[in-house]
Amino acid sequence: MSFSPLINELVSAFKILPGVGAKSAQRMAFSLLERNREGALHLSKVLHDAMEHVSHCEQCRTFTESRLCKICENPMRSESGQLCIVESPQDVLAIEQTSEYKGKYFVLMGHLSPIDGIGPAEIGLNELAELLIAESVSEVILATNPTVEGEATAHYIGQMCKEKDIKATRIAHGVPVGGELEYIDGNTLTHAFTGRRQF
Amino acid sequence: MSFSPLINELVSAFKILPGVGAKSAQRMAFSLLERNREGALHLSKVLHDAMEHVSHCEQCRTFTESRLCKICENPMRSESGQLCIVESPQDVLAIEQTSEYKGKYFVLMGHLSPIDGIGPAEIGLNELAELLIAESVSEVILATNPTVEGEATAHYIGQMCKEKDIKATRIAHGVPVGGELEYIDGNTLTHAFTGRRQF
Ligand SMILES: [Zn+2]
Ligand SMILES: [Zn+2]
Repeated sequence: MSFSPLINELVSAFKILPGVGAKSAQRMAFSLLERNREGALHLSKVLHDAMEHVSHCEQCRTFTESRLCKICENPMRSESGQLCIVESPQDVLAIEQTSEYKGKYFVLMGHLSPIDGIGPAEIGLNELAELLIAESVSEVILATNPTVEGEATAHYIGQMCKEKDIKATRIAHGVPVGGELEYIDGNTLTHAFTGRRQF
Repeated sequence: MSFSPLINELVSAFKILPGVGAKSAQRMAFSLLERNREGALHLSKVLHDAMEHVSHCEQCRTFTESRLCKICENPMRSESGQLCIVESPQDVLAIEQTSEYKGKYFVLMGHLSPIDGIGPAEIGLNELAELLIAESVSEVILATNPTVEGEATAHYIGQMCKEKDIKATRIAHGVPVGGELEYIDGNTLTHAFTGRRQF
C-alpha cells in the first residue's frame, strides 16, 4: 500500500471495522475524501464521543451514555415482574421490535465461555443475583442464543433461579415462521418435535 | 432503530461509508464499543486529520497532504518524458505495483460526464494543457478505464495532444492474462481480435 502517509494511515485505520478488508478500506477512504468530507468529520466526532461516553446501564448492563437506559428508567416496565436475559444490546432491540414483551431486560454482554476466561462474574451474574432480589422478579425469561454457549448460560442462570425459588422459562426453539422444513437443520427439527403442542 | 441517542447517531454516521447498510453499521458500532475503543479513537483522529489535511498534488492532482506527491517530487520520473493519464489515485497505485512504468502521472479525479456537469475544466484539462508544455512531455499514455466515459475522455485528451503535436498512446484492451475465453464479454473479445499481433 503506498498512497501518501496520511491516506495509508486512514486505510489501515478502517481495517479495524468488522468485515472490512484492504480493498473496502481503500474504497471508504477515497469515497470520503472525494465526496463526503463533511460526513466524515461528523463520523469522526460521533465516533470519538461514543467511545468516550458510552458505558453500561447500571441496572441491565446494556450500552448507554446515561446512568440508566430508557427501559430501566421506565417504571411501567417493572409492573409485570418479568426479567428477560439476553446476550447483547442488539437482542434487546430485536425483542423490542416485536412489541410483544413489556418487562425488563438483563444484558449479559456475552455468554459463559470458560475456555476464553469468561465465567459468571464476567457476564454480570453477581449483579443479576442482586437484581433478582431488589426488583422482586417473578419470572426470568432465558432468551440467550440457541448455541452451545447460549444453552449452557441459560442452564446456569436457570439453576440460580431455582435456588432462589424464582420461576425461569426458556424461549421456544423450533421451525422459524415461514421457514421450509427441508432447509431446517436437524437440531432445530428435533427441538420442533419435542416442543410440539396440541393442535 | 432505538438504542441510546449517541449509539443511534453512531450507527447512522457509519452508513455514509460505501457498502455499509443498517445491519453492518450496527455491527461496526457494537464491535468497537465492545472490543476496540482504542482503535476507534485512533480511527476518529486519523479520519479527522485526513479530511482536514489531504488535498491535491499541485502537479498531478492525486490526493496528498504535501504540496507535491512522492512521484512528482522525484526528478527521475521526468526522465522518460512520459505522462500517464488515469482516472483515480487507486489507478496510480495499481500501475505502480507492476513496477513497469517509470514516468509521471496525471490524475483526472474522474472522467468526462456532461450529463453530470463534468466537463474538461472539472477533470483538470486546463492544468494538463499547461503541464504538457511546462514538462516537455514526449508521450501521453491514455490509461483511462475501458468504459464509455473512459473512452470518451481518452479520445478528448488524444485530440488535445494531436493539436499540440504530442504523441498519444492508448493502453491495450484484450483478454486478461489468466482469463478464460468463455467468461470474457463480447466487447473485450472484439478488442482482443482487432488488437491481435503477429505470433
Ligand atoms: Zn437498563
Ligand atoms: Zn503528483
